[in-house]
Amino acid sequence: MTDYTDTLIRVRYAETDQMGVAHHANYLIWFDVGRIEFCRHSGFEYERMETEDDTFLVVAEASCRYKLPARFDDVLRIRTRVTGSQRRTVRFGYEILGEMGQVIATGATLHVFCNRLGHVKSLPEKYHEYFPSITMLTENRG
Amino acid sequence: MTDYTDTLIRVRYAETDQMGVAHHANYLIWFDVGRIEFCRHSGFEYERMETEDDTFLVVAEASCRYKLPARFDDVLRIRTRVTGSQRRTVRFGYEILGEMGQVIATGATLHVFCNRLGHVKSLPEKYHEYFPSITMLTENRG
Amino acid sequence: MTDYTDTLIRVRYAETDQMGVAHHANYLIWFDVGRIEFCRHSGFEYERMETEDDTFLVVAEASCRYKLPARFDDVLRIRTRVTGSQRRTVRFGYEILGEMGQVIATGATLHVFCNRLGHVKSLPEKYHEYFPSITMLTENRG
Amino acid sequence: MTDYTDTLIRVRYAETDQMGVAHHANYLIWFDVGRIEFCRHSGFEYERMETEDDTFLVVAEASCRYKLPARFDDVLRIRTRVTGSQRRTVRFGYEILGEMGQVIATGATLHVFCNRLGHVKSLPEKYHEYFPSITMLTENRG
Repeated sequence: MTDYTDTLIRVRYAETDQMGVAHHANYLIWFDVGRIEFCRHSGFEYERMETEDDTFLVVAEASCRYKLPARFDDVLRIRTRVTGSQRRTVRFGYEILGEMGQVIATGATLHVFCNRLGHVKSLPEKYHEYFPSITMLTENRG
Repeated sequence: MTDYTDTLIRVRYAETDQMGVAHHANYLIWFDVGRIEFCRHSGFEYERMETEDDTFLVVAEASCRYKLPARFDDVLRIRTRVTGSQRRTVRFGYEILGEMGQVIATGATLHVFCNRLGHVKSLPEKYHEYFPSITMLTENRG
Repeated sequence: MTDYTDTLIRVRYAETDQMGVAHHANYLIWFDVGRIEFCRHSGFEYERMETEDDTFLVVAEASCRYKLPARFDDVLRIRTRVTGSQRRTVRFGYEILGEMGQVIATGATLHVFCNRLGHVKSLPEKYHEYFPSITMLTENRG
Repeated sequence: MTDYTDTLIRVRYAETDQMGVAHHANYLIWFDVGRIEFCRHSGFEYERMETEDDTFLVVAEASCRYKLPARFDDVLRIRTRVTGSQRRTVRFGYEILGEMGQVIATGATLHVFCNRLGHVKSLPEKYHEYFPSITMLTENRG
């Protein structure tokens, strides 16, 4: 059993820059895409987490290491996993892989659970099962 | 007296594509920038129109003709004017000019006044003075 | 037989704006995506047209009519077809459809065939078959 | 004497997302803007470094910590400095400050000097003066 979700994207023309490669800011957008699919494959829709449960994964930190260039029309695999979670935060890790499995980039984002107004909150219990370490924290509390 | 507002922007690296020029979708973003400054120079903050008066300029149509390429680090002048307005719509026209005054692009956007939920509404009276043709319509009504 | 190609995309978080809908400039980027897939399904890779045949589809005009909002995580169908072509230009038409087939937007782009330096050129003969009206022009010449 | 350059930008509508704040990927684009202005204020045009001296500052790492949200139409100050440099790499640090001087975000990028083909190279000597630690390295060599 894998603990990650793979999502495929194709580099768009508008994502390239005059160096002839995908501009590095797009990688953070691709991490978003990977994270949303990770949620869906875990069993919930991130969109509903926002609209129905007033819980937003606000980005507190983001980082990326660029290993190899990504080029227009390349198909990239965004491999996303949870690398840590606590009652009020969750950390995701990402690998971006090329068609031959080569590592294009690695990255991480740290998120704080917030409500629509941006105030920090605990993750609603219905979502605990999707973030193992929170589940453990909760169980240990009992 | 001019009926337009000029706004300067500088082409960003991320806005270029592998053709070595600014990608054409950015022009619509620059039109936004020009329109916001047009509002400010006319005497009101677009941001407040949204938050305080629940009035959004929802884009119904946009078009652009690209005459000359814009390149990284070029300083561009976005010349914005209102080219028509009615009780529920307003049309803006744009010219993007290079440093020598050459025409890089021309464009237009048509907007419908909507509330936060996306329902069409009439422009609140406090804003009529900024859109001459609406003012005229209002006066003729009396 | 259809004369169009359908491409599916999913609205990204970064593509939304504070109105809660996809920002209108992204539609031009989605048209790009549709056009690249149209080329692929027609039988050639646009990337190679640029790199191997020094032929670029430079955008001369773009327009879009926005009918219904597109929202985060929506799956959109970009329906792309050639609506006209001449020796030095080609015109594409687009429809963006929602999951129920509703029309989100329609649009068009006009392109001029150029070399890497941005000089207008005729479309190389090997590509004529992909653009029917050019093929006809060529045959009528004989 | 300051060792940093301040650049002002205004948050664009297209840069906001449905959370009502500037999407976090834009910060990397703003870092670009700050870095280009840093170069200009240091005495050289980054554009010429690419075109005349075939030297590109390829991004190898990027990171950002988000402290406070940035909102539409906010004027932000991007404070950019060199925080380290070696013969083949340079590291930049950034602070993004709000109108009251509050820290919106901090970040860093690591760059490798490359030629147009993406091969690592040493920084040409004419640029050493702009990167103090490289100048020192060079002098110590003698």
